[in-house]
Amino acid sequence: MVHAVEWQGTQVRLLNQTVLPQVVEYIDCTEYQRVAEAIKRLEVRGAPAIGVAAAFGMVLGARQSVAAENFWQAVTNIGGELKATRPTAVNLFWAIDRMLAVLTACQKEKQTIETTIQRLEAEAIHILEDDLAMNYQMAKHGATLFIEPTAILTHCNAGALATGGYGTALGVVREAHAAGHVTEVFADETRPLLQGARLTAWELMQDNIPVTLITDNMAGWVMQQGKVQAVIVGADRITCNGDVANKIGTYSVAVLAKRHNIPFYVAAPVSTFDFTMQTGADIPIEERHSGEITQVGGVQTAPAGVKVFNPAFDVTPNELVSAIITEHGVLRPPYDVSIQQLKARKDEQHD
Amino acid sequence: MVHAVEWQGTQVRLLNQTVLPQVVEYIDCTEYQRVAEAIKRLEVRGAPAIGVAAAFGMVLGARQSVAAENFWQAVTNIGGELKATRPTAVNLFWAIDRMLAVLTACQKEKQTIETTIQRLEAEAIHILEDDLAMNYQMAKHGATLFIEPTAILTHCNAGALATGGYGTALGVVREAHAAGHVTEVFADETRPLLQGARLTAWELMQDNIPVTLITDNMAGWVMQQGKVQAVIVGADRITCNGDVANKIGTYSVAVLAKRHNIPFYVAAPVSTFDFTMQTGADIPIEERHSGEITQVGGVQTAPAGVKVFNPAFDVTPNELVSAIITEHGVLRPPYDVSIQQLKARKDEQHD
Repeated sequence: MVHAVEWQGTQVRLLNQTVLPQVVEYIDCTEYQRVAEAIKRLEVRGAPAIGVAAAFGMVLGARQSVAAENFWQAVTNIGGELKATRPTAVNLFWAIDRMLAVLTACQKEKQTIETTIQRLEAEAIHILEDDLAMNYQMAKHGATLFIEPTAILTHCNAGALATGGYGTALGVVREAHAAGHVTEVFADETRPLLQGARLTAWELMQDNIPVTLITDNMAGWVMQQGKVQAVIVGADRITCNGDVANKIGTYSVAVLAKRHNIPFYVAAPVSTFDFTMQTGADIPIEERHSGEITQVGGVQTAPAGVKVFNPAFDVTPNELVSAIITEHGVLRPPYDVSIQQLKARKDEQHD
Repeated sequence: MVHAVEWQGTQVRLLNQTVLPQVVEYIDCTEYQRVAEAIKRLEVRGAPAIGVAAAFGMVLGARQSVAAENFWQAVTNIGGELKATRPTAVNLFWAIDRMLAVLTACQKEKQTIETTIQRLEAEAIHILEDDLAMNYQMAKHGATLFIEPTAILTHCNAGALATGGYGTALGVVREAHAAGHVTEVFADETRPLLQGARLTAWELMQDNIPVTLITDNMAGWVMQQGKVQAVIVGADRITCNGDVANKIGTYSVAVLAKRHNIPFYVAAPVSTFDFTMQTGADIPIEERHSGEITQVGGVQTAPAGVKVFNPAFDVTPNELVSAIITEHGVLRPPYDVSIQQLKARKDEQHD
């Protein structure tokens, strides 16, 4: 299986996703700063994978802080730095908060720095392993939605490359394909950074899952022509009412699916839910630099100096979401109820 | 003004639109085969501009046929060759049929080959001049739809570069902007060939009309954010019921506009109407080669060998079209009635 993030004991190895599929190149990070840089540059991307990478960044940061004047404060600050790398996906904050909780517990228990670092490492490994396990669970739940031959459209990359492995949306696709229920996957290329063309098409081809690449603006016509029976995407943040922030263009796909009476599914682990936020209107949307739009692969494609609007995400309102697939099962509308139930269940597990 | 097609007495000069805006390069065609090649390669593109270029191609073809065994048959065959270059836009067939009508008339009148070629040249110049005049008319009619500050979204390029000059959709934008009613133009980049990024953005910047470039998948979010109050596009073919074939992605934009209660306007000369075709379901949709999607500006962006679906056009059903702007005025639904009236008016003028 492809690994977006791999822990190697002394370093975290990231698969550089900005140069795939033409070049398979790894970035070995021995310092947390390089992990932060990789998150900002999208060398590692996908909400769950960012969370996992940041967790290992915390381990590296703790090791770098051994000689700090105040170890505990230094590591806490590093958590803040890593949190500031990207604003929209919530798994990043969730993963770092899990690491900070371990840090705080160790401090309270007056553990040695050495033990603390060991426990941070164990926690990060847990986050990675949990993510993989959750994806398998999600896939099993999601696959129950596909009981007959189905052509599926997906946007961006919510695959092995976006997670600890196997994928969220593409995990469901893999499971449904293994069960013989996927006839075709249409991958939106997903401008500006072409995660669909570069990553989703590549991942699916590696697994011999039939994939057809289209430009983003073809999704509506493909639906109108009756070529697609379901849409499935990942998520970067889901609010209490079921609004879904995800890669820019997801909202358009959801509107188009609605018009064609095609179910629109979201696959995301519970770590993607922001239980502190009521609606999608409150989600901060990252805007990225204009060069992502005016250039493709280093080639200038637009007039120099043209004004650009480049939001990296959009928000799909709950009314357009047919179901949300989590590791605990499939949520259905009304989401204010089903997400509250999910939260209660999660809180119970923590008690 | 920018000229996509210019007649220079002995040759037709085409602005090479595949290399804009980085390179301003002209293609001087002295043989009809080069014009046909330019249409196929999209060096000249945009339904009205293709029609004009093909008309001059007929003039070149007639000159090349002076020594042919049967001049009349040779030129007729060249008309057939030029018609076969692209299947969707109807202005191409319309322009060649106008040229063939002159050819037939000359043959009936037993004109000399020399006179016939002169009359063909005069007819092609007429087609070019008519197109420009129609665009000015269309712009005047269309501008009446914009009576307050409006941000307009457009898809592909229906500008000076797509026509004899001034543009269809962008002609309306120019006129409305001159009247002080355009606050901003959002240009979809229009994958795969980026006519929005390369041509529309460039054209509007030349005229100091404020333009913001977005990727195609941002159109829905831009509308959701309340940033757009109208959409205007061109057309490659309009059927008797008001269905509109236009650049791939137009249908998605129309669906998104409908959801946000944003008017969706089409600007096209009468030569774009196919009065022989009842509905858009009958329009042949050109599929182009996969390289347009797997590469951008010569850079490979998708895995080698990936399967691709690449329709160059889609059809927007009449129910999503708020109005169609022609040189004879603004058509409103029901289109079967208003388009029939347009046809009656056009037939009268021919009598």
